[in-house]
Amino acid sequence: MTAVPSVSNSITVRLEVPARGNAVSQITTSVESAGGTVTGLDVTASGMESLRIDVTIAAVSVAHAEEIVEKLRTIEGISIGKVSDRTFLMHLGGKIEMSSKLPIRNRDDLSMIYTPGVARVCMAIAENPEDARRLTIKRNSVAVVTDGSAVLGLGNIGPKAALPVMEGKAALFKRFAGIDAWPLCLDTQDTDEIVAIVKAIAPGFAGINLEDISAPRCFEIEARLREALDIPVFHDDQHGTAIVVLAALMNALEVVGKHIGDVRVVMSGAGAAGTAILRLLMAAGVRHATVADVKGVVHLGRDDLNESLRWIAENTNRSNRTGSLKEAVRGADVFIGVSAPNVLDGEDIAAMAEDAIVFALANPDPEVDPAVARQTAAVVATGRSDFPNQINNVLVFPGVFRGLLDAQSRTVNTEMMLAASRALAATVGAEERNANYIIPSVFHADVAKTVAAAVREAAVAAGTAQVTTGSTGETGSFPHLQD
Amino acid sequence: MTAVPSVSNSITVRLEVPARGNAVSQITTSVESAGGTVTGLDVTASGMESLRIDVTIAAVSVAHAEEIVEKLRTIEGISIGKVSDRTFLMHLGGKIEMSSKLPIRNRDDLSMIYTPGVARVCMAIAENPEDARRLTIKRNSVAVVTDGSAVLGLGNIGPKAALPVMEGKAALFKRFAGIDAWPLCLDTQDTDEIVAIVKAIAPGFAGINLEDISAPRCFEIEARLREALDIPVFHDDQHGTAIVVLAALMNALEVVGKHIGDVRVVMSGAGAAGTAILRLLMAAGVRHATVADVKGVVHLGRDDLNESLRWIAENTNRSNRTGSLKEAVRGADVFIGVSAPNVLDGEDIAAMAEDAIVFALANPDPEVDPAVARQTAAVVATGRSDFPNQINNVLVFPGVFRGLLDAQSRTVNTEMMLAASRALAATVGAEERNANYIIPSVFHADVAKTVAAAVREAAVAAGTAQVTTGSTGETGSFPHLQD
Repeated sequence: MTAVPSVSNSITVRLEVPARGNAVSQITTSVESAGGTVTGLDVTASGMESLRIDVTIAAVSVAHAEEIVEKLRTIEGISIGKVSDRTFLMHLGGKIEMSSKLPIRNRDDLSMIYTPGVARVCMAIAENPEDARRLTIKRNSVAVVTDGSAVLGLGNIGPKAALPVMEGKAALFKRFAGIDAWPLCLDTQDTDEIVAIVKAIAPGFAGINLEDISAPRCFEIEARLREALDIPVFHDDQHGTAIVVLAALMNALEVVGKHIGDVRVVMSGAGAAGTAILRLLMAAGVRHATVADVKGVVHLGRDDLNESLRWIAENTNRSNRTGSLKEAVRGADVFIGVSAPNVLDGEDIAAMAEDAIVFALANPDPEVDPAVARQTAAVVATGRSDFPNQINNVLVFPGVFRGLLDAQSRTVNTEMMLAASRALAATVGAEERNANYIIPSVFHADVAKTVAAAVREAAVAAGTAQVTTGSTGETGSFPHLQD
Repeated sequence: MTAVPSVSNSITVRLEVPARGNAVSQITTSVESAGGTVTGLDVTASGMESLRIDVTIAAVSVAHAEEIVEKLRTIEGISIGKVSDRTFLMHLGGKIEMSSKLPIRNRDDLSMIYTPGVARVCMAIAENPEDARRLTIKRNSVAVVTDGSAVLGLGNIGPKAALPVMEGKAALFKRFAGIDAWPLCLDTQDTDEIVAIVKAIAPGFAGINLEDISAPRCFEIEARLREALDIPVFHDDQHGTAIVVLAALMNALEVVGKHIGDVRVVMSGAGAAGTAILRLLMAAGVRHATVADVKGVVHLGRDDLNESLRWIAENTNRSNRTGSLKEAVRGADVFIGVSAPNVLDGEDIAAMAEDAIVFALANPDPEVDPAVARQTAAVVATGRSDFPNQINNVLVFPGVFRGLLDAQSRTVNTEMMLAASRALAATVGAEERNANYIIPSVFHADVAKTVAAAVREAAVAAGTAQVTTGSTGETGSFPHLQD
């Protein structure tokens, strides 16, 4: 598993090189011999004696980028100017903005979108609060809420440091589902306080996306908010992951010709994602599951079971297996890892059942080297974009929320999540499905709308929708004076 | 003071009229004779026998609009179709949206604005939290926070019904100052809870605009938040109003040739706006002020003084006057009303000192009919857009926040507010200043940037800024690998 150069670690280096000679080819050769990739080369100024060239280089890491620059420095006649980090450049000033949908050109515009005209709209909503869905941004707005306690794999880095992720999430909501999301990064990690805050800010939103909140607090926060609010609350790290894993597993099982009710599933990781995946897999028909955490297989005999682990112990591992993950995975049909790098090796995978399915989702370094796993397993998926079958939440959360918002759903439940999984799996046609294509690209044009339609329909069927058909049409009567 | 037709009460009526004859002129005549104004007339379909015409009509009120429609109905040969309310039409789906500043076209884009690249930006902020100002939306974001307890003049209509006002405010922030504001309408009116919520959401914002929160809670909420947060907290209903009133007063005093330290000011209203106006006027040099509320003049002998009224009693009314507003206003140089309609009449204004200044700001109906007041007073201003000298907060809050954000100010203080008033007053040149032009239009091109520059400079001078010059330039070093 050698890391490859990535644009996410790319730099732009400004160089002055002699106008004559082979300086340009020396640059390219030098970058490549240092393991980098030249992804762009612009001559930005040219004179009699020298050229100014901006070279963009993808590296494996920041340290690697620095090595490449040092290597360039050794080329004779070249002088190195500013070195910029492309990812940081893109983040300057933030990634999202707010804009007005209406022009404000003159006093007439002002008198309708603000005072005095706005007062009539306020009174209409005061008389009929449900009108907020029609006459305000509520209908299409989602709050992306975090406390910064479990950001990506970076841990408890706090609310300010979490903001770039939340902005990115908001940008993806718009890009893939046309949703207006705004990040709220909370300066508290107190469960009661987070619940109170989200309850309080809810009137202006049609959905709450909880993000990067650590387990086990995330379970309680979500459960209490679902109970309290009349809009859906969705912890993406749990359910977004679960929905995409189930969709990928459905297709992987088709590829190997096994049935979900028959396979033995072993999971590594019992945190937020692991628990949600387990629950959704069981709702989808998995009957034989075993879960391991850092202390080995979860079973009723362990004396360290908290509420969440106890639920797992009571509902999995029917043969009351004990021991290590490596022991548990022997003979298993499916391995799903949402835990830590390199907890398994090629021998462990080779010891699984024939036509094994391996989802090694720890990021950036999977539970097992996918190239090694692929030598014996039939289907391998990871969370990485540089291997086939990337399990990526971006496949799910935009469509799920689009469907919930279109249905004006008051909640989100297991049936809707199962519907999302089935719809996502179905975007891979039977004729294109194979071991290297069990899940579509996030840029597959149909994904978000297909998932949205399924979720909307499931919300209507569940009776949690405030629209009565699966359509996205207007609901309620418009306040015409007369019709 | 007859109400005039306003576009904020305008409707579009769809009519089918005979192709031949004078139907069109009959429509116009009919609308005008009913007191409405035709502001648009579009033939949207034309046939051999009939025309379809959409007529847009400004009315005085919704009831008036209905009367006009009934009048149209009596014209022979005309049939009336859909009647739409233009203000409501503009509000459908809300007035603001969120958008991504960066395109998300492919995996490379995704890997920089989201995972894995975003992780490096997060870590940079975790190591140096001040970097959030450069690498996230924080720098340019303002939360518009309300509890819906005192919305416009509509009272305690709650968070959902307040949302159209907050959206409008956010749209104005962008229109006049390029600021990204997002509304947070809170489902609580508990002071402690509001303080806790605003503290918690602060990491993602560079400023807090409190809006339409009722007195006296608004005083405590603002004071506690200013104490707790390292970003400016500004209750616009108080300070925005105070800044624009002071600016208008400065110019009005120039018009009549009186000095701020000499005039006797009488105010009607001791709520949020009244108290803030009083404090700012005193900071600007007013020495002789008397305040009246519904119970008459505020003096130390009253037994109903709460904390805020006690402060007023102790700091105004040096001659310890008692009695009614009408009595107090006799002989006064300046009347400022932020209270209720029609508390004064023409005789009261005539009894003021020569060259009296009257700011009757109750909305939509002023403390005294401005046309009547103008018969004896030298300068009259109101909050209405259909009279000269409109005192409108839109003149102030965009520029004030722009200045605070550009300075990266940790707070907002009286000096900055005085600077804003002076800057706003100065946008009316000495050569154009007169009794009907003491304050510019909100669409005056210089207003926001002039106010912003003054506030930024005052913040730098006060040492509350995190930039060390008055410029809007980048601060801190960009994370180049090398420079």
